[in-house]
Amino acid sequence: MSAFTDLWRELADVGGSPEQGYVRFAWTPAEWELRSWFRAQARYRDLAFEVDGNTTMWATWNPGGAAGPAVVTGSHLDSVPHGGGYDGPLGVVSAFLAVDLLRRRGVTPARPIRIAAFAEEEGSRFGVACLGSRLMTGAFDPGRARALTDRDGVTLAEALSRYDFDPARLGPVPLDGVHAFVELHVEQGRALTVPVGIGSSVWPHGRWRMDFTGEGNHAGTTLMGDRRDPMLTYAFSVLAANKEARVHGAHATVGRVAVHPNATNAIPSRVTGWLDARAASTETLDALLASLGSKIATRAARDGTGFTITAESTTGEIGFSDALIRRCVTVLGEDTPVLPTGAGHDAGVLSGSVPTVMLFVRNPTGVSHAPAERAEDEDCEAGVTALAAVLEELACR
Amino acid sequence: MSAFTDLWRELADVGGSPEQGYVRFAWTPAEWELRSWFRAQARYRDLAFEVDGNTTMWATWNPGGAAGPAVVTGSHLDSVPHGGGYDGPLGVVSAFLAVDLLRRRGVTPARPIRIAAFAEEEGSRFGVACLGSRLMTGAFDPGRARALTDRDGVTLAEALSRYDFDPARLGPVPLDGVHAFVELHVEQGRALTVPVGIGSSVWPHGRWRMDFTGEGNHAGTTLMGDRRDPMLTYAFSVLAANKEARVHGAHATVGRVAVHPNATNAIPSRVTGWLDARAASTETLDALLASLGSKIATRAARDGTGFTITAESTTGEIGFSDALIRRCVTVLGEDTPVLPTGAGHDAGVLSGSVPTVMLFVRNPTGVSHAPAERAEDEDCEAGVTALAAVLEELACR
Repeated sequence: MSAFTDLWRELADVGGSPEQGYVRFAWTPAEWELRSWFRAQARYRDLAFEVDGNTTMWATWNPGGAAGPAVVTGSHLDSVPHGGGYDGPLGVVSAFLAVDLLRRRGVTPARPIRIAAFAEEEGSRFGVACLGSRLMTGAFDPGRARALTDRDGVTLAEALSRYDFDPARLGPVPLDGVHAFVELHVEQGRALTVPVGIGSSVWPHGRWRMDFTGEGNHAGTTLMGDRRDPMLTYAFSVLAANKEARVHGAHATVGRVAVHPNATNAIPSRVTGWLDARAASTETLDALLASLGSKIATRAARDGTGFTITAESTTGEIGFSDALIRRCVTVLGEDTPVLPTGAGHDAGVLSGSVPTVMLFVRNPTGVSHAPAERAEDEDCEAGVTALAAVLEELACR
Repeated sequence: MSAFTDLWRELADVGGSPEQGYVRFAWTPAEWELRSWFRAQARYRDLAFEVDGNTTMWATWNPGGAAGPAVVTGSHLDSVPHGGGYDGPLGVVSAFLAVDLLRRRGVTPARPIRIAAFAEEEGSRFGVACLGSRLMTGAFDPGRARALTDRDGVTLAEALSRYDFDPARLGPVPLDGVHAFVELHVEQGRALTVPVGIGSSVWPHGRWRMDFTGEGNHAGTTLMGDRRDPMLTYAFSVLAANKEARVHGAHATVGRVAVHPNATNAIPSRVTGWLDARAASTETLDALLASLGSKIATRAARDGTGFTITAESTTGEIGFSDALIRRCVTVLGEDTPVLPTGAGHDAGVLSGSVPTVMLFVRNPTGVSHAPAERAEDEDCEAGVTALAAVLEELACR
């Protein structure tokens, strides 16, 4: 059995299964088990372990006692609800194995190599994607973060306190200690046809909460003409978002909804839908949102319902470091594909503050955020080898 | 303070509030509190109390020790989620007060008068409306009932056992002991413009579960053309149901939805919507469903999604007893409005087995199944007076 297969297996039963997918939300028992695993991996390798104020975990390999900025690699351990096992953990597992590889090869890096695991990357619990890295870079206000609530009404501050994390410690972390950041991630479409590729950019993207209000009433006795049914406006919005995405050559999805009171025999008083939209350029994304918003407003007026749309998190166009991309191409070979992604990543957030690049590992199903998300062990091993080569390049030269 | 105001106030804080509405699901702590209240009312009035195998509660007033079939009145105590306080409890409270009125007037009925409170009338917990009365009349299989599950996966059998009810006792109850059934209920539209009316019939109606299946995937990276998104087919169905209802002069509502995994950045793999549909005739309802089903099937083929529709409960056209309606008109006055209702009731279920009639109390808001559901105390007192007159007519003549 390969080192990858061996280490990967340790995570197979945490917070789910390969068949049913994983529910690994930030600051929950399942994620705590992953945190314990991370700490054990650091200890087993004799790496210095620490947790910063944003609950990002760090494991540092610095055999030569080098001073100065570190080369950072890693990813996240949380998942979407019933997501695949690769999105996030692959980058963390690969980071530990890449360090093992460099150590076995007798490499002594001239810069510290640090492995990071960021919290709440998916935003599955508190609605803000890449929350850990946004807090680290100062892109998200710590006070606003503390007040975020999950679906059960638990505030982020309460969630942290339950695990003895101090909510007062959330906030920016100095980034002058980071020489470069490399995130390895499973590819999330079918764009990569060889085992490993290099990330060029992240599409501009965001999440918007759409609130529809109407009048709760009896489903049986209320005349159709007397209704102010927010489910109708919601349904229109789902179809309109899909149409606008096609028209604009963009991506738009409504994958989450909450209904009040959500009863078969009651016209809802309130429906909330969450829009995920992404496009190759900020202009396209803005145009999509403007057109969609105006169409929904017209429909809401017809339905007699209220409609508001609120950005929960947005990220502009992100290009990774050209210099790092060139160095990756040099190390991994001129044939290595360089490709953009429609998915958001902590690497996208960090790229505004430190030189950043990504490596992608092939996904044969093209499926992600669902149990069918997959990467072959051989491809994952190629990912480890590639990551080790890139880390050696960045930490030794 | 009137007797009505006084007794009504006892229920104001059970399982909710007038402002926020009530969540009083069958066999939960809130409903248990209402059961304790019912038992206390029976004891206070020295009425014989019993609970039958379907957990229907009974309080019997038989001061003359009459033998033979009883005149039954009553309603239900459970609610839709965040429903109003009147739908159900008004009929039970009015029944106790009507007995008080007859007793104060020195009436000794020639037939027993029994007050009933049926369980799970709304179907809010286990999905089958009028479950208690359906079990009583043999219209619903006890084995199938025991296996029903609520949203948390609790079976009905487990739910009963938690309150020491014996699930093995569910099933038909002999109805030859019932001379007539009268249910008083708050009106649920704006059709009644005087304090009290008489029910003529219940529209045919039902609930159907619509299951949409697709392929869970990443919202950011999956090309629009590669998607099989069941949320699109669901949204289409919501709008199509509304349109078909208008075309057919019927009522159709999709007020409840469940999405898997229900994450902002994931295309759902599964969406379930519940359709509530009602019409003045069975033919119209059938035509609506046939047309809607065919339109959704066409759309599902286009979306690459799976679609099935399953009846969870259906009730055909129901006319109340002409003889009882005539006697009510005689007792309450020739001007008393006689009106149909689009809402289902235990009275509708029982009307197939015993002579049945309903009384309605005016609802000034026309709202029901929501906190704004209302009846004025004066109208409720008029309802008690009317119910007492009808009970005297049926129990003494």
